[in-house]
Amino acid sequence: MENRARVLIDCEDAKGLVYKISKVFYDRGLNIDNNREFVDKEYGRFFMRTVVTGLFDSDELLQEVKSVVPQDAHIRVIEPKDKKIVILATKESHALGDILIRYADGELGAEIECVIANHDTLKGLVERFDIPFFHIPAEDLSREEHEEKVMNCIDKHEFDYMVLAKYMRILTPTFVKAYELKIINIHHSFLPAFIGANPYKQAFERGVKIIGATAHFVTDDLDEGPIIAQDVIPVNHRLSWKDMQRAGRDGEKIVLSRALSLVLHDRIFVNGNKTVIF
Amino acid sequence: MENRARVLIDCEDAKGLVYKISKVFYDRGLNIDNNREFVDKEYGRFFMRTVVTGLFDSDELLQEVKSVVPQDAHIRVIEPKDKKIVILATKESHALGDILIRYADGELGAEIECVIANHDTLKGLVERFDIPFFHIPAEDLSREEHEEKVMNCIDKHEFDYMVLAKYMRILTPTFVKAYELKIINIHHSFLPAFIGANPYKQAFERGVKIIGATAHFVTDDLDEGPIIAQDVIPVNHRLSWKDMQRAGRDGEKIVLSRALSLVLHDRIFVNGNKTVIF
Amino acid sequence: MENRARVLIDCEDAKGLVYKISKVFYDRGLNIDNNREFVDKEYGRFFMRTVVTGLFDSDELLQEVKSVVPQDAHIRVIEPKDKKIVILATKESHALGDILIRYADGELGAEIECVIANHDTLKGLVERFDIPFFHIPAEDLSREEHEEKVMNCIDKHEFDYMVLAKYMRILTPTFVKAYELKIINIHHSFLPAFIGANPYKQAFERGVKIIGATAHFVTDDLDEGPIIAQDVIPVNHRLSWKDMQRAGRDGEKIVLSRALSLVLHDRIFVNGNKTVIF
Amino acid sequence: MENRARVLIDCEDAKGLVYKISKVFYDRGLNIDNNREFVDKEYGRFFMRTVVTGLFDSDELLQEVKSVVPQDAHIRVIEPKDKKIVILATKESHALGDILIRYADGELGAEIECVIANHDTLKGLVERFDIPFFHIPAEDLSREEHEEKVMNCIDKHEFDYMVLAKYMRILTPTFVKAYELKIINIHHSFLPAFIGANPYKQAFERGVKIIGATAHFVTDDLDEGPIIAQDVIPVNHRLSWKDMQRAGRDGEKIVLSRALSLVLHDRIFVNGNKTVIF
Repeated sequence: MENRARVLIDCEDAKGLVYKISKVFYDRGLNIDNNREFVDKEYGRFFMRTVVTGLFDSDELLQEVKSVVPQDAHIRVIEPKDKKIVILATKESHALGDILIRYADGELGAEIECVIANHDTLKGLVERFDIPFFHIPAEDLSREEHEEKVMNCIDKHEFDYMVLAKYMRILTPTFVKAYELKIINIHHSFLPAFIGANPYKQAFERGVKIIGATAHFVTDDLDEGPIIAQDVIPVNHRLSWKDMQRAGRDGEKIVLSRALSLVLHDRIFVNGNKTVIF
Repeated sequence: MENRARVLIDCEDAKGLVYKISKVFYDRGLNIDNNREFVDKEYGRFFMRTVVTGLFDSDELLQEVKSVVPQDAHIRVIEPKDKKIVILATKESHALGDILIRYADGELGAEIECVIANHDTLKGLVERFDIPFFHIPAEDLSREEHEEKVMNCIDKHEFDYMVLAKYMRILTPTFVKAYELKIINIHHSFLPAFIGANPYKQAFERGVKIIGATAHFVTDDLDEGPIIAQDVIPVNHRLSWKDMQRAGRDGEKIVLSRALSLVLHDRIFVNGNKTVIF
Repeated sequence: MENRARVLIDCEDAKGLVYKISKVFYDRGLNIDNNREFVDKEYGRFFMRTVVTGLFDSDELLQEVKSVVPQDAHIRVIEPKDKKIVILATKESHALGDILIRYADGELGAEIECVIANHDTLKGLVERFDIPFFHIPAEDLSREEHEEKVMNCIDKHEFDYMVLAKYMRILTPTFVKAYELKIINIHHSFLPAFIGANPYKQAFERGVKIIGATAHFVTDDLDEGPIIAQDVIPVNHRLSWKDMQRAGRDGEKIVLSRALSLVLHDRIFVNGNKTVIF
Repeated sequence: MENRARVLIDCEDAKGLVYKISKVFYDRGLNIDNNREFVDKEYGRFFMRTVVTGLFDSDELLQEVKSVVPQDAHIRVIEPKDKKIVILATKESHALGDILIRYADGELGAEIECVIANHDTLKGLVERFDIPFFHIPAEDLSREEHEEKVMNCIDKHEFDYMVLAKYMRILTPTFVKAYELKIINIHHSFLPAFIGANPYKQAFERGVKIIGATAHFVTDDLDEGPIIAQDVIPVNHRLSWKDMQRAGRDGEKIVLSRALSLVLHDRIFVNGNKTVIF
């Protein structure tokens, strides 16, 4: 029976890698459905994503590829299927809502295990879609105490990625570390401009003519992780910062959904603090 | 008690209109919260939209403005409040879903009276939001017979605008006439390119590097009515037409929602087959 | 004989300003060719730009407008005619070249009095257009000494605006002060991201997916003056920082030329550290 | 001595092509500097562009690649060096000027053999850059007679590509045939919208909110050839068609220059009536 897999290889660059890897596929009689490579010359790093079809066992294929590439290689052979996600939110519905509509439509490419929020504003919306909603208030709790409660809740679920759909709380390094390169955030500015709180107010005060949104992996440094996707929206002097916030929502939700789609289709390599996207 | 209204004036251009109209507001002691004008020199037409606050009766204000502008003037004094809409759809959820999320959020600025569709695919989604859904199948019916059923259903509701959220059926002139300048459609191309059926397939076959979406008022001629909003998305040779269709959905929903917001906030004048938007 | 002028008014907001000002124009029998207003509610400031035609003396008109607006008003009555500019450059030709082509075409709307550069790379190009080129090298000079030479050269010319067409030197507060709100700079990033030296390298290292350009008035704080125009260009992991620099040039030249056109057509008000653009 | 070449292969798709071709490079000890492939599944066509460095003879390399790919393959082994172009223009300077500035800067990547125009408006500009300018007026000539004169002039020059930098004349099939896939045109609309004369006027009359520009190869059918690059510019009701024309110029010149750069760097495959661009 025909099999299908995404093969992702990330290793030190070396001569003949394309040849050696494609030989593995050729010798096994596999079809290449799609193939993209990139060499980061600054760091001497090779990236390749190939979609193969044919008769193969994923583990065997992985071992065979491993035998022809440098030792440091990070190789993944992934069969396409829905991944699992958990979503953290606060009060705003637009980014979450965009994901929910795609989910209801079967377009998302992921199961939503649950939505966790520090307010109960979104409970009604989430439950309309028959998804478990957990309200974990942060009042009277230290950041650590609150996160512990959130982690307890999350860890009852199996998941591949955690999506911060306008989760308006800062995460501790401990929390981030626990889910390394699994957390995707949407920041409401074109990073690195307007890091931190209320970027629309900052943008308004600076008098910019363009506002933006940035989806990125979350790392220790707030708003400093590898960028996945960005987009911008033109603005002018007529917009108050509340108007900018309103106008910016469309950008936020589209950028987050686009980034999520890239993640769920295994199209991203993290390369230091950057991303390689095929 | 303070009142607030949007005053929209559309008339033959003449000397001193800004002076004469602003005098009416000034003499009554009204505050101007926002004011925009435009003169279409080709057609010699004057457009003005002013938001006024103060003590006034809307009808009296309208009569007073009327007394200082040319006879052909079309004047509206509109108190800001939620309008009512009906939505027609077929099977696709993205444009409808975007409106539903804004509605659930209280951001839409309109009551949704009902959703009518020629398939029942979207019934579940709509009912999640406690909105009446009417399935009016078109099978075995002539276009006229189907439209009659739709009109019967629609006419049981009071509404200001009818939104075609990817309603994939052509409307007869009779239907369009019955709801003149009340119907807003989203067409999945940057009109006037790719009029008619399956614009993504047409775009794919033409090999364009940009696809788009267009929201417009519906008039007799298919895809020929006054354009309200347009946006585009870059594409490349890697995308099949199905990929373009998928990529295009985000543009469609954002453009439709943006157009709907302009309509609901009384920001649009129709000027021949064009729009003036403040 | 018919006269034509741009009337720009910038003052404290007050009731009836549109009425009072349009009354001045109406009483004199002037035609309003174009009219735009804006009220900055945060600062309570009123801005209006009107193009009037008819029989009038500019000084008299200014006095009459002055008599109906708040005392702090800044009023300009400007007859449309070519302004004069001086250009400062270093080695790169794209931003300068774009201005030169528009100039040769008669499209610029300004006389170029001279080009001054701290290198002689661009001498050939500038002289092709019969424009005086002054090479003022900075080697072995303190910043102050070099600027003094530049100022001596500039001050031999009458000019309305000074354009920094990729002038790669930091200006002292003394220099900036001497030409307050007359200096227009193009910065090669979407400010406030990547302030300072080599923004493309910074952008590359941060792994952004969008680069940009910003035209702004120069004030004391480097890259902090009021923004006039911005634009962005999508990038991806394939671009080195040199590639980004190359790709960014088109954005830089277009944004600078667009900003220059706005300035030359008196379409800009400076409002604190922001701009109001009609 | 190290050599460097762009290898472009375009052939019927078949199993193992990446493997077989990369084997040729590997066996010869060549380095792959950059590699991109694409399979057009609709037409079963394979495209590959590889930049190789090392010790090789171009003809031998071509023959070796030829021996491993399907018979219908179109293979090019191109050493990077400046190509030669001729430019046809009429009266407008912006598209031509943008090319001239890049040329003067050494950034163009091509020698400009000559500029030919049916008016003499641009003579001064072209000669500033020490490039031969030929004025071939079309008055009192049939289309065929005029083209014959142009061809006589062109054919005295060796060139790789002919650039129509706003050449406002329709070409006959005979002319187009003589320079198949060598002619690059800039059309001042986002094709296929507004084919034919005065697209800005058409755009104005249709009331679009976006205008565009399209660079394409010229084929028999006017404005129907394979599209290389497109871009758009937002517009609104305030712009007359002359304003749109003015605003559109920046888009036109940038799109043409971008297309020209792709052509000159051998980054384009023509695939039926489409392009594959790496």
